[in-house]
This record gives sequence, structure tokens and C-alpha cells, in this order.
Amino acid sequence: MHAHPTASDPAPGTPAPGPAANSDAIRLQLRSWPEVDGYLQGCKGVIVPLGSTEQHGPTGAIGTDALTAEAVALEVGRRTGVLVTPAQAFGMAEHHLGFAGTISLQPSTLLAVMHDLVLSLARHGFERIFVINGHGGNIATSKAAFAQAYASASARGLAAAPRLRCRLANWFMAAPVMQKARELYGDREGQHATPSEIALTLHLEPSLISKQRPLEPPAPAGPIHGPEDFRLRYPDGRMGSDPFLAQPDHGAELLALAAAALSDDLLRFLADEEAG
Amino acid sequence: MHAHPTASDPAPGTPAPGPAANSDAIRLQLRSWPEVDGYLQGCKGVIVPLGSTEQHGPTGAIGTDALTAEAVALEVGRRTGVLVTPAQAFGMAEHHLGFAGTISLQPSTLLAVMHDLVLSLARHGFERIFVINGHGGNIATSKAAFAQAYASASARGLAAAPRLRCRLANWFMAAPVMQKARELYGDREGQHATPSEIALTLHLEPSLISKQRPLEPPAPAGPIHGPEDFRLRYPDGRMGSDPFLAQPDHGAELLALAAAALSDDLLRFLADEEAG
Amino acid sequence: MHAHPTASDPAPGTPAPGPAANSDAIRLQLRSWPEVDGYLQGCKGVIVPLGSTEQHGPTGAIGTDALTAEAVALEVGRRTGVLVTPAQAFGMAEHHLGFAGTISLQPSTLLAVMHDLVLSLARHGFERIFVINGHGGNIATSKAAFAQAYASASARGLAAAPRLRCRLANWFMAAPVMQKARELYGDREGQHATPSEIALTLHLEPSLISKQRPLEPPAPAGPIHGPEDFRLRYPDGRMGSDPFLAQPDHGAELLALAAAALSDDLLRFLADEEAG
Amino acid sequence: MHAHPTASDPAPGTPAPGPAANSDAIRLQLRSWPEVDGYLQGCKGVIVPLGSTEQHGPTGAIGTDALTAEAVALEVGRRTGVLVTPAQAFGMAEHHLGFAGTISLQPSTLLAVMHDLVLSLARHGFERIFVINGHGGNIATSKAAFAQAYASASARGLAAAPRLRCRLANWFMAAPVMQKARELYGDREGQHATPSEIALTLHLEPSLISKQRPLEPPAPAGPIHGPEDFRLRYPDGRMGSDPFLAQPDHGAELLALAAAALSDDLLRFLADEEAG
Amino acid sequence: MHAHPTASDPAPGTPAPGPAANSDAIRLQLRSWPEVDGYLQGCKGVIVPLGSTEQHGPTGAIGTDALTAEAVALEVGRRTGVLVTPAQAFGMAEHHLGFAGTISLQPSTLLAVMHDLVLSLARHGFERIFVINGHGGNIATSKAAFAQAYASASARGLAAAPRLRCRLANWFMAAPVMQKARELYGDREGQHATPSEIALTLHLEPSLISKQRPLEPPAPAGPIHGPEDFRLRYPDGRMGSDPFLAQPDHGAELLALAAAALSDDLLRFLADEEAG
Amino acid sequence: MHAHPTASDPAPGTPAPGPAANSDAIRLQLRSWPEVDGYLQGCKGVIVPLGSTEQHGPTGAIGTDALTAEAVALEVGRRTGVLVTPAQAFGMAEHHLGFAGTISLQPSTLLAVMHDLVLSLARHGFERIFVINGHGGNIATSKAAFAQAYASASARGLAAAPRLRCRLANWFMAAPVMQKARELYGDREGQHATPSEIALTLHLEPSLISKQRPLEPPAPAGPIHGPEDFRLRYPDGRMGSDPFLAQPDHGAELLALAAAALSDDLLRFLADEEAG
Repeated sequence: MHAHPTASDPAPGTPAPGPAANSDAIRLQLRSWPEVDGYLQGCKGVIVPLGSTEQHGPTGAIGTDALTAEAVALEVGRRTGVLVTPAQAFGMAEHHLGFAGTISLQPSTLLAVMHDLVLSLARHGFERIFVINGHGGNIATSKAAFAQAYASASARGLAAAPRLRCRLANWFMAAPVMQKARELYGDREGQHATPSEIALTLHLEPSLISKQRPLEPPAPAGPIHGPEDFRLRYPDGRMGSDPFLAQPDHGAELLALAAAALSDDLLRFLADEEAG
Repeated sequence: MHAHPTASDPAPGTPAPGPAANSDAIRLQLRSWPEVDGYLQGCKGVIVPLGSTEQHGPTGAIGTDALTAEAVALEVGRRTGVLVTPAQAFGMAEHHLGFAGTISLQPSTLLAVMHDLVLSLARHGFERIFVINGHGGNIATSKAAFAQAYASASARGLAAAPRLRCRLANWFMAAPVMQKARELYGDREGQHATPSEIALTLHLEPSLISKQRPLEPPAPAGPIHGPEDFRLRYPDGRMGSDPFLAQPDHGAELLALAAAALSDDLLRFLADEEAG
Repeated sequence: MHAHPTASDPAPGTPAPGPAANSDAIRLQLRSWPEVDGYLQGCKGVIVPLGSTEQHGPTGAIGTDALTAEAVALEVGRRTGVLVTPAQAFGMAEHHLGFAGTISLQPSTLLAVMHDLVLSLARHGFERIFVINGHGGNIATSKAAFAQAYASASARGLAAAPRLRCRLANWFMAAPVMQKARELYGDREGQHATPSEIALTLHLEPSLISKQRPLEPPAPAGPIHGPEDFRLRYPDGRMGSDPFLAQPDHGAELLALAAAALSDDLLRFLADEEAG
Repeated sequence: MHAHPTASDPAPGTPAPGPAANSDAIRLQLRSWPEVDGYLQGCKGVIVPLGSTEQHGPTGAIGTDALTAEAVALEVGRRTGVLVTPAQAFGMAEHHLGFAGTISLQPSTLLAVMHDLVLSLARHGFERIFVINGHGGNIATSKAAFAQAYASASARGLAAAPRLRCRLANWFMAAPVMQKARELYGDREGQHATPSEIALTLHLEPSLISKQRPLEPPAPAGPIHGPEDFRLRYPDGRMGSDPFLAQPDHGAELLALAAAALSDDLLRFLADEEAG
Repeated sequence: MHAHPTASDPAPGTPAPGPAANSDAIRLQLRSWPEVDGYLQGCKGVIVPLGSTEQHGPTGAIGTDALTAEAVALEVGRRTGVLVTPAQAFGMAEHHLGFAGTISLQPSTLLAVMHDLVLSLARHGFERIFVINGHGGNIATSKAAFAQAYASASARGLAAAPRLRCRLANWFMAAPVMQKARELYGDREGQHATPSEIALTLHLEPSLISKQRPLEPPAPAGPIHGPEDFRLRYPDGRMGSDPFLAQPDHGAELLALAAAALSDDLLRFLADEEAG
Repeated sequence: MHAHPTASDPAPGTPAPGPAANSDAIRLQLRSWPEVDGYLQGCKGVIVPLGSTEQHGPTGAIGTDALTAEAVALEVGRRTGVLVTPAQAFGMAEHHLGFAGTISLQPSTLLAVMHDLVLSLARHGFERIFVINGHGGNIATSKAAFAQAYASASARGLAAAPRLRCRLANWFMAAPVMQKARELYGDREGQHATPSEIALTLHLEPSLISKQRPLEPPAPAGPIHGPEDFRLRYPDGRMGSDPFLAQPDHGAELLALAAAALSDDLLRFLADEEAG
């Protein structure tokens, strides 16, 4: 309605490099530091995959959230040419600690981790930090960390501080992904160890396919509190989901949908436009 | 769909005491410790109002978020008989620090505050902590704090730990409140220094009415990053809102709607039912 | 004795605005940010009420320390025209956690809270932070926080850092207050849940009057250690006090005495003069 | 010399499961929680790969330390059957922050991360945490974290606390690896961005081979202090190394040597025998 | 007045061992662990000297506060037979950091140090921690640390937790010391770099005597804020004091007075009697 | 091999003042602040002794690590003229907490302590911090603290930040010391409560000589984990050592060897040369 005065635009956009030949080309891990220096001449954006290492029901893979976040991130990187850091595979999963194999960072620890990642990147001149997240439990703490990082960047007088912006992009909440999951699974999508995320892992890691088996009806989705409460409420780790519905080809399709949606979101973020 | 086996119900509900004669009757500040001991025989629930102290545009009151959260909390307490602690009037408002008078706790500090409040209450046997929040910037950190508190309660071996549950209730996001705001203000509700929250303050603090005056069109609502970015993007502090539309009687109506919606939510929380 | 070379005076005083029409006029919560900007043109001082939420004996109100600190602060603000922030109602009350309803911030948490409050205010240009405190247990931690805040303000390069000064003013330790309490209650004033503070709450909150009743002789005042020790030593929460002696009119008188004494202290603080 | 009284043996060994068919079989990320429960019936050991994301000279990959640590860990897991968690790809690299692309956790953050990982695992009953590390800068902080973790496990009363043991295994410091590096590269191995670690990355990521090119003589190896000092002392990031000597087949050989040496070390660790 | 019911006495006293032959006999540093085990059979008390390392005016020794605290502690130990730990020579001296040679722990750091010292001692069964302090700047933080330590001892379930008590004894504030200082120096005692503490150092370290020289009149004593403010207010580091008045024999006398007063205080503390 | 371009030398050396008449002359505790100001005109180096307070077997002194570190530091100071701060007598000794009298700082606490010491010194212009350490358990945390300190010094914009360097010098690991210990004690030197460190204490504190007595064969040296594990593994606190072999004259010789070796190391550090 009201015109936004472009004269006071706080920070003009930074262009995306454009599609890469393959995902190797955008992995920060495979770059040298002079290459990153060169990259920063053209683009101030970077993608950080954030996952979790936690139970995903009686058949799902403990690495689901990190595997999926990294896969989506690499595909978004490939489509846009934006660099992708390695994944932070451990997130905030305190409520899943009642199940063997779950590894959790306390909220205060994850806050420090995300803070330090952002500050390191901002020091080099990165101004748009796009975190692709695979786990709902990371959302709150990551957002808190962004606020802490803005303050630190300013307190330390980093040159990039006034232009530093972080965005959390949860691939599993992208509209096309949620719509497709509803089409495929209806109410049996559930809230944790969902067939959609499991499908993605079946596509990425074929060795997981053999674990699929029919399961008892799950406990219905509900609130999340502490680990003891979670285990009592959701005895096998699922929240209303039927992961047996998942199929690898669903995963391939969901990956493409997520990557397309988040690529669009990233380009708007780099251009300083709002999400649709 | 799937029956939830009641036998394994992790924690049976705790009843609400029922309507109080007036709000004095449910203010923890006006209770003695033996009275609280007695209260806990019947009800394990408690309400914690959480606000912020931050700019609310060129005419809005800096105390808006604490004043409104406390007013809603007292009215919810009056309707349900559940005790209300004093308000935590300082919240996470780092992004507003570019405007004079804003006082902010860093995310790591607010995390510690909310953690300590929950732990203190859990030590006495409170099992349902219902935080009525007046500020969007508190949401992420409060949720992170709840996860940290569950872990600490368990690590310290508190008797209430397995049954401890926290819920964050943002009065301004209650469905009837948002619907009414849309009816009253349409797109001019905006995202910060909104006419709905300002209306509530006009109802609570009549001295504020004289400050109301027509304002320039606001900057449109958009993302929130650091304080420098916020000030450039939203030069007078408003995000797409027209607080001049606010009127005291709107505030009275919004307060009633918020209190009704959150009272229902609280009763479901105490009864361990899900939100509608 | 020795002349203090005025040439090297580190920071000239800042004038107080002068008496306000009423306490609404000096509540930061009711100001807008441009009003605070304007205020800072004339005065760099601000008052922060600090309380606690803790047991006050078998009949006293749990909110005593926050209610009284806020009341004194508002009256000091009214007399001097200096802005008053909302109260921090939760303080360091670890030793009272053995009694239901007590809510405590750990020392490290309160240290962070007071640090962040001071830093937020200093960022805007406030140079004299006058904390009006209602609870002995807050004293040590608040003073530690001031030292931490001075260091942070300097490390962050805040413009106000070299002139930043904080003072802790404990209303219950003001000389005229202590003298009046001795006149009224003699040895039965005690050390916690004292008739003087209870009298102030009776004046402020008439609903409390009906709780007054004769009590058993209290445990004598003594040292304060951990919560278990405290409860054993002071079984009903009182330390040598007889709160049944309190009367509302005493409270009115004590409030006036405290406000007068602390107003004088505040004016000297703003003028950079020493306490008498 | 002196007989060690076996009667007081603090914790008997835990057997290794034995070689796995492939590395998928030992990736925690691909396991479900019931599978981990079952695993713990037979073995209490787990491998945690720890890397870093930091400059490795003008041609080396920024991900070198995480890529190599994870590769060695997976091969050790395959040979012994011990589960491997996902890699913590971000480590303590403060001294490399003068070079673009480096991402560092502060020591206090990495301490918290490693603490939380160990505590999560100990909660499930893991008693032998074998951290395979690819970065010298992580050593000090990791060891500090182990001490902190032992104390927390005990303070929280974890059942596994008395038997909890962590070991840091730095693959690049294994005797056969160092001997082979000396044979291959002599003095030109250097201290950072060494041909041995670069060779491993060439073996793992063939896309890196094309980056190899002859380089100027490096600055000689020396001490490590802060980032400014590091960049002045080692202008292109290398410490006395000539990574152009690296070849993929060297990497394959070094990987095998490292995996063999660390597998032996792990088996001794599980059996509670001392390192040779 | 009111009888204190001895039946509910929370913790009966612990006897002091009685005078030691010399100070070596009570230095914890010179004991073996079985000797400490034996000591704890008879006495649960321990003395911790706490100093600071900070400027003491143009002629005073930077180590004044640690040297004096340790000397008093050893003499109290000798007189009572209570063990004395080594001194914590670094304290909270942020305000003195404007003068070369001052070394300060931030308040949050000193809080952690004192917390950890108390927790270590409580773990072994020490129940009465008597901290002999030589520096006013340590008082607030030490008291905050005691509260934090009580809470941790309880949260960790230490056997000694319910009986754990800490007391801060500031030797320079003992009544006989202050009286003697007034007799000797009158108003020229001042507040920092006082002749009384300097006298003690002249007695302990004869090499300091040659530094004594007449000084300009000092800046008058006043408030303490941040380091810049302190240096402007007190340009040579003194607060109203004339350390040239100090003489070694004064120091010997003051040491004896301090040791006598604090020995009495310690014995009352061990016997769970109140200070006079 | 490769010439190091002296033109880019990041920080030229700072000269040592040269031998002092006695150790009093180099104790920071006995200096005044103007003397330190003067010292800094000529030398930017300083020595910090770091010890521990922990069990040293059934006959060894609990203060061994602090007594020896301080003695070596004072002798190095005397030989080089470099200032010596007071000792930090409490270190990281979590694993010894199973033995009475041990006092430990948690790793996170010691990290903060060492960080604050370095930052305080750097603020005054000290650029070479030489920590003489007497305890293996301090090594990891001290090195982590150095990295944290470099980052803070830079973030705070300290003038000395780019030239700030810390070195940890463990006297007991100096080559001539280890060689002499092997000559004197062979395999019976062991790893903790070693005859070499005990010999040094016998030389420093003759009252300890009478405690020497023949002991049972010790548990063999092995790994170090948590306190329960340590006590089970090393029931009397020794790790493979026979402290009865220690003699005072050995201690005198070891002290001289340590001081000579560390003096050389310090001079190279000040001159920015590498260790041999």
C-alpha cells in the first residue's frame, strides 16, 4: 500500500552466481581460501545446512534431519551457485534423549554454535546467511542465535555488521512440500518421523529401504515437553505418522520441490525482497 | 484416528480452581507462602506474564508489551482462578535498540531468566507453566528456555520433572484477536506498534490517549534483523501499522477476546488436552 | 581536607528535570521513544526498581520486595522528574526457595540481567543508573553486575562508557527509614518479613490487611546460607520480626521517608556529589 | 613391573562387534533407535569424527580436516564394527579466521559441544567415546571438554558415569602415518596444509586434483597465536608444507595406515588396555 | 528475646583443632590427602585467603591485598588449628585496570572461581568455608558466589549440602583493625592504598620499606565506577589516603589485631554462634 | 630450508631486562604501578606461574604443583629480569577430586581465569605472556584459553592485540628435567606424584621431609578419566611413581635445570625465535 522509499534501502541485494555444474562446485569444503575470496567479490550469500541426530521412530534413520537438510542445501546451492558450508549435524534434540542414539546440544550450546558460525562468516564479508534447517527443534534456538549474532557483530565492529542478515529456511515447511506431503499421505503424515522426511532418506540412502515395515498405529501428534514426557506420550518415537507409506520416488520429488521453493526464497533473500 | 492409549497417559490433568472474585485474588505477589502451599494441593498450574520494554512507534508506549501481557494474564487468572506471577517486563528486544528507551535482554540472558523461573516453580511442585507473552521477539528464546528447563529439572532430580510442561501463549496471536484486529484495521494492523496492541494500552492507561495523532504512512512490514538494519528499514519504528486507528473501546474488546481465548487454552493445557 | 582539583572532574553532573505532576509522567513504560530522546537532551539519569518474589513469613505477601521497590521508585521519580523503568520483579532469592511461591534468579542470571539493563540504557546515552532495590539478597549480585557492565560498555566502545555510573539505593537501609522502624518496632523489626516492609505493602495493597494476625515468636535473626539451612533456622520464614505490628499508616509514612531520602541521594548522584 | 590388581579393575572392557560389511552398516545416521538399543547390548563403544572448516593453503580444500576425520572414522568403524556418529565439521580454528572461508567455534563453544555430545551418548549407556580428530586446534579444547563431561555425568548421576571414558585419537599423529609422511615428503610435510592430509583429500574427492599446482616456498613452521599474527607469519596459510607433493594414491595408503593404527588403538581402548 | 528452639538447630557446631605449632602445620599445601581425611574426622572448617593483584597508589605494592589476606589467614590458622588453602591471588579489580600491573577477573569469572572452590571443598565434607578477604572489590561477587554454590551443592546432591555454610571475613573491616587505623592515621587512612594495609606489607616484605616517600595530597575518597572514571577521579590510584604514614611496626600490630578478631569470628562460625 | 622473509616479521622481539639481584626484584606483587609502567618501556614480557591444589599420593604435598611452578617461575624471573605475577594456585584437577583436599576449577572456569589474566596484561601493553605450569591437567584448558584470549583482545580492539602471544611452559616436561629424572629414578619416576616433583617440594619446604616413607608398589601409570575411575585405577593417588626416592638435593638440582631450560625458552620467546 504505502510506498517504501527506495532511497533509504538499508542494503542493496547481492546477486546469486547462477546455476553450478554440480554440487561439488558449491561445496565450501572443496574450495580453497583464495577461491572464497574471489567468490565474495561477486556474492555475499552462503547456505548453512542445519540438521539433528535423533530418533525417527522404530524404522527411521537417526540421521534423517541432517541427511535431508544437507541434500536440500546442496541442491539449492547447485541451482543458485551459492556456496554451501558443511552441515551442522547435531542440533537441539533434548526431547528425544529418551531414545537411544539421539545426540543433542543444549539450547545454550546450539545458540553459541550458530552464533559463532554467523560471526565467522560475517568476518569474511558474508552478509546473507541462509540456514537450511531439517529439524523443528532447532527453530527457536537458531532464531535466538541470530539476534545474539547481530548484537555481537555490531559490538565487535565488524564491517559487515549493519548489512548482516540471517534467514532460517525449514525445508519441510515449504508450502509445495507440505502440499505434496498432504496429497501423498493425508493425515498419516503426522509430525515426527513423517513419511515425507523418511521418503527423502530412502531416496538418498537406498540401504534404508529394507528397514521399511508396517507399524502399529502411532500415538497421535501432540505437544512436546521434556524427554520423559515425550517417551510416555510417543512410546515408539512417532508423532502421528505412518512412515511405512514413504517411497524413494516420493523422496526424489519432495527434494526437487523443496529445492525449488528454497531456491526462490534464497534469491529473494539475496535480492532483499520479501518472501511471497 | 488412532486411539491414544489412556493407560500410558504420561500425566493426568490438574483442575483449575475456577473463577476468582477479582484479580487481587490470583496475584502471586499478594499471596503468602502458606497460601501457595494450600493452592498447590488443588492446582499445579501457574501463569507467568512476559513482556518487553521497547519502542512502539512515534506515539506508542514503550511499555506496551509488558502492560498488555500483564493485563491479559490477570484477566485469565481471574477467569480461571490460576495464580499469576509478577510480569517479567524486560524481554528480548535487541532489534529495537536503535530507538531510545528500549531495554533488551540478550537471548542468552532471557534464556537463563525463563529457565530459572521455570525451575523455581517446578521445585515447589508447579507442573504446568503457562507463559502469557506480549512480544514476538520473546518467542524463540522462551521456547529454547523451556527445553533447557526440562533438561535441568531432570538433571537436578526434581520430583515434578517428569510431569513438567510449559506452554507459550502469545495473546496477540490468538485467533479471535487476530480476526477482530483484521475487522477493525484491515491491512493497517501491520506487524509492530499495531493498532490492536496500542488500543489495549489506551484502555489500560488513559493518559496515553492524548498522544494519539495521525502519522505518516509507515514503512511496510518486512523482515527483522539487527538494530541498525531495523532502524533503516523502519525509520519511525512502525512496521506497516497505523496506530492512530486504535481506540480505547477496541482495547477493552480485544482484552476480553484475548482473555477468553487464552483461558480456554489454559484449561485445555491443565487438562492435558490439545489446543483446538 | 585535601582540595579536589575541579579541573580534572571526570564527569560534570546532569540536572534533574524537577517534580512531575504525577507518577504517570515519569514512567518509562508510558513514554514513546521520541519522548525519551527529548528527555535525554536534558537529563542523563534513570531509575530502575529492583525487587524480588519470595516468601515473607506466614502472613506477608510474596511480592513485598517488588511492590515496595516500585512504589518508592515511582515516588522518587515523581519528586525529581527522573524517568522510572518498569520493575525487575524477580531477584536473587535462592535462600528462600524452601518456601512455596518463591521465584529466584541464580546469581549468574541476575548478574546478566542487570548487566543487560545497564548496557541497553547506556547505549541510548543514559549515564546515571539509579537502582532502587527492595531486597538485601540482590545487593551483592547487583554490585558485581555494575562492574561487569562498566567493562562491557568500555569493551563495546559505547560513547557513554567513560561517564557511565550506577548506584544501588536500598530503600529499607535509608537512615530515616531505619530510624523510624526502630521507633515503631524496636527489636521486633527483625531482618526479614519486617513490620516496616509489611506496613508499606498494607498501605499499597489494602487487600493484605485482612491477613494480619498475631504470630508465634519468630526465630531470631541470624546468618543466611542455603535454602535447606534457611528453612531449618527460620521455620516460618521470619528472621526475628513481628509483622503483626505493621499498620497501613506506618507504611505511608515510611514510603514518604524513603522517597525523600532517596530523592536527595539521587540528586547528589546526578550532581556527582557524594552521599552525606 | 608392579602387578595391577585385577580385582579392583574399575571397568572391564567392552568387546568390539567385529568387521562390518561396509561403512553404511556402522553409520549411526543410518540406524534406527531400536537398532542402537540392540547394539548397546553388545558394545558400549562409539566413534565421533571431529573436524574443522578452515583454510588449508592456497590450493587445499577448506574441508580437509572434516573430510579426512570422517573418512578415517568410517574406515575404523568398518574394520571394528563400532558405530560412527556424524562428523562435527566445525572446530576450533580461531587462528585461521584471517583467511576467507574459515569457520570457527570459540574454545568455550567447542567445549560445550563436545561436552553435550559425550553427555548425550553417556545417557544412553555408551561408556567409551572415541573421538577421531582431524585438526590440531581441537586437541586442547576437546580434552578440556572430556574433563567437564566426566564431572557433569557424575553430577547428574548418570548410571554410566563411573565407567565413562573418552579418548582423543588424532589420525595425523598416528605413528605409521607420520612415518609414511616423512618417507614421502621429508621436511616438506610441514605443519599445516601438509601434503599428507591433502593427499587424503585427493583420494576422497577427485575434483580436488585439478587444483594442485606448484607453489612458492612456504613460510617455515612456527608457533600459532592469534589470527592477525598467523596471517603475517604464514601469508598464504601454509606452515612449512609443500602440498603439491600430494598424490591421490598416497592418500589411499595413508588412509589405510591411519585406519589400521586407530583400529588397534580403539580395540585397546574398548578392552581397557593401554596404548602401545 | 524469643527463645530459639535448640531442638531444631540445623547444624551443630564443629570444633576447632586448637593452636598449631606454626603456620606450616595448617597449610593445606603442605598436607597429604590422608592427612586431610584425618583432619576432617575432627573439624569441618577451612580457611580460604582471597586477595587481589592491583595498583595501590604510586608507592604501594600491587600484591598488597593478596599478601595481607594470606598473612592474616595463616595467623588465624595458626591460632585456631584450622586448615588454610593457598590464596586466590587474583580477584575482581576491574576498576583498577587503568593502572599498569593490575590483573582482574571479571565478576562472572570470580563468581565461577569461588563457586568451584566451595564445591570442591564441600565434596570432601568441609561444611564451614571461611574466606579471609583482603579486597573490597571481591565482597559482592564472593557473596553472590556463595549463593550459587549452595544451590549447586544441593542440585548435585552433595552429602554436605544441607550443612554447607560460607562466611566472608574482610580483615580490614574488623572492628579492632579499623579502630587502630583511626588512632594511627585519622582521616588520612582513606579508602584505598591505606596506610594500614601498606603498613602490613612493610611488616611482611621489608624490601618495600625503601619505596616509602612523601606524596602529594591524594584525591578524596569517593565512589567507584569504571576504570576510566576511577583514573580520572583518583589520578595516582589513592583514595584519600596517605600511605607514607605507614610503618612496619604498625603492620605487626594490625596483623595481630586482625588475626585475633578473625580467630574469634571463625570460632563462633564453627560453633554456629552469631558474630558479636 | 625455505628462507623466512624478515621483512614481513610480524612482531619484532622484546629484550629481556637481564638478571635481577634477587627474586624480590621481579615479583609483580612487590612493584608499584609506576614501576610497572617503567618496566613496560623496556620489556613487554611477563611470567605467570600456574599450579594446582590436588592430592599427590599418600605422602606428597597437596600444594606440589603450585609450589614448584612458583619456585621455577621466580628463578626464571631472577635469571632473566622478567616480571613474575603471583601464582594461580588452583587449576583443573577434576580427576583428583576423589581424594580429600583436592580443589579444582572446572575447565570452563579455568578457561575464563586464564583468559582474564591474559586480557588484563594485554591491556597494559604486555605482549608476551609466558605461563610456567606445574600441572599436566592445566595444559589443554590453558591452550584453549589462549585462543579465546587472542580473539577477545582483537574483538575489544586492544592496541596490543596483533602482537599478543602466549606460551605455555611446563617445567616438568623440559628436556633436561626429564632426562635427569630418568637418571635418578628410571621407571619409578611414574606419571603423578613423581619423585622429581616431590624432590622439588622437599627442597622448597623442609618440613615435608619427615613425611617421606616407603610405600607399597604403586598402580601402574595409565589413562586419566573421571574422578571415580581415577580413584579405582590409582587407589592411593600415585600413577606408577615411587616418591620415596625423592631427596631435597635432587630438588635443588631439578630446580636449577628447569630454570635454566625455561629461561632459554623465555628468551627465545621474547626474541620471537622458535624453541629448539
